[in-house]
Amino acid sequence: MHSISEYREEFVAYLNSKKLTKEPRNLYEPISYILGLGGKRLRPVLVLMTAEIFNSQYNKALNAALAIEVFHNFSLVHDDIMDDAPVRRGKVTVHEKWDINTGILSGDAMLIIAYQLFEIYEPLVFRELAKLFSKTALEVCEGQQYDVDFETRDDVMLPEYLKMIEYKTAVLVAAALKMGAIVAGASAIDQEHMYDFGLNLGIAFQLQDDYLDVFGDPKTFGKQVGGDIIENKKTYLYLKAMNSGSEATSKELEHLYSIQPVETEAKVNAVRSIFKKTKADEATQNAIADYTEKAFKVLEKIDIEEQKKQLLRTFGENLMNRTV
Amino acid sequence: MHSISEYREEFVAYLNSKKLTKEPRNLYEPISYILGLGGKRLRPVLVLMTAEIFNSQYNKALNAALAIEVFHNFSLVHDDIMDDAPVRRGKVTVHEKWDINTGILSGDAMLIIAYQLFEIYEPLVFRELAKLFSKTALEVCEGQQYDVDFETRDDVMLPEYLKMIEYKTAVLVAAALKMGAIVAGASAIDQEHMYDFGLNLGIAFQLQDDYLDVFGDPKTFGKQVGGDIIENKKTYLYLKAMNSGSEATSKELEHLYSIQPVETEAKVNAVRSIFKKTKADEATQNAIADYTEKAFKVLEKIDIEEQKKQLLRTFGENLMNRTV
Repeated sequence: MHSISEYREEFVAYLNSKKLTKEPRNLYEPISYILGLGGKRLRPVLVLMTAEIFNSQYNKALNAALAIEVFHNFSLVHDDIMDDAPVRRGKVTVHEKWDINTGILSGDAMLIIAYQLFEIYEPLVFRELAKLFSKTALEVCEGQQYDVDFETRDDVMLPEYLKMIEYKTAVLVAAALKMGAIVAGASAIDQEHMYDFGLNLGIAFQLQDDYLDVFGDPKTFGKQVGGDIIENKKTYLYLKAMNSGSEATSKELEHLYSIQPVETEAKVNAVRSIFKKTKADEATQNAIADYTEKAFKVLEKIDIEEQKKQLLRTFGENLMNRTV
Repeated sequence: MHSISEYREEFVAYLNSKKLTKEPRNLYEPISYILGLGGKRLRPVLVLMTAEIFNSQYNKALNAALAIEVFHNFSLVHDDIMDDAPVRRGKVTVHEKWDINTGILSGDAMLIIAYQLFEIYEPLVFRELAKLFSKTALEVCEGQQYDVDFETRDDVMLPEYLKMIEYKTAVLVAAALKMGAIVAGASAIDQEHMYDFGLNLGIAFQLQDDYLDVFGDPKTFGKQVGGDIIENKKTYLYLKAMNSGSEATSKELEHLYSIQPVETEAKVNAVRSIFKKTKADEATQNAIADYTEKAFKVLEKIDIEEQKKQLLRTFGENLMNRTV
């Protein structure tokens, strides 16, 4: 087995070895650009690691890993257009550097290229990977649509929110783990266990993202702390607070989420203290712990050596402590 | 064998039988909407017809036919955003009826759904269809990019233009014919012949579209006659005229293609008479005849009954006379 940083290095080396910029340049240059911006490469690392866990050489899984990363970046390019986001990973977004039409078309090409990367696998594996990929990709689109819909709805329920983050974030983590298992020829039951491990870990990860967005350390949290509150994003914390506070508190929170003050600090602090008063902070941490525990429980059922389970557990713990 | 209108009816019945609108509605309703707008359904008809030509039941090919139609409509939705087009098939475009974000995301979902439609085929056929589909879809993106690039270039050469329309239009017609052959289990060589037949016919079709846009009968041509001239579109006619006129004529044409008068009639008439004077009209008609003949020559090589070749020939002729 390799370490996470070794997988990452091998993956980035493989990515760089691919000649992605060809003609027409205006179509392919934005693809090279976004893929070159970096990031933690979590999803492709998971594909490679899982392949080795099930006794395959990791390099057999490089194309599947790249497909997942290309798809992830496709979704970033199109989401950034939809969110009108100027910055991604500290650099200008594709539609800002070029234009919206370029972002749409280069994104489309990335989605197709992701499918093409499965073509090196033999027919049965190809079919399994492509089917899982399509199902996952469509769920990511559905998750994005729910996220958009929730912005203008004031009756979002917690289970709906959990489904949204499951689709928008967790299914791709789950698919990454399952793909590694598919490439390595793991049993169907082990493939499903890996998927469930990833799904629960993915939900825990997103809930923690919600939590850190409000209570994180500005020095270590990658994004602006308080960003979700400033944008009136109805996260797990918000929905919990709306459910568990008194009517007066709910009204106050609802009001705070209807305003967009130029000076944001007072609003962020007010919302933060409501999250504490209603114990929405604790509830969120409990949910994170629950999903993490669920993930680790699934791990027990998988037919692999204890040492490999420990590796996945360490990965999960590092992810939750954001040291990965 | 069935008639073209029978294939069309069967296809539309199959399309309507598919429950395309599910949750989230804002993602799937635009998909139902664009697919329900109609159109001639040429591409799916070609898939069904080719399957029967190679002795398969046409209904075995219904999913491949639907995949081609869903992809074609995906490209219309995204192209209409890029072109800022308000109307499609006499109805408002998706991004006008909803918004640009909806057009992007519903389009993405359509591209994925097209792949999913191949999943009913057995692994080897699935792989062949998905590979051909990916190659074709990526070429369509490249064709669209070339088309965009050409708008701001004044040194476009005829071979580049031909490659652009090949990618943007003809490869999908070619892929439709090849898919029918794949589903029916035709030999690899017959599959290629069908592809080449479609490719040449597709180029002829697009060149004729260029021609009719300038010289067509406003009563029967679906779009506004003169539209390409008004939009300064560098079509085959324009490039031929630039190449074959005197320097003075080229300068005049270049000037006419730099202005955007409110009253368009004089400009359209001036350009039209340059196209005639330089014999660009004849050259275009010759090119159309050449590509059509090439298509019919490929047909000779295919290992099917004469009667079936005649059917394809009739389809080609009808297409060229726009009675299909």
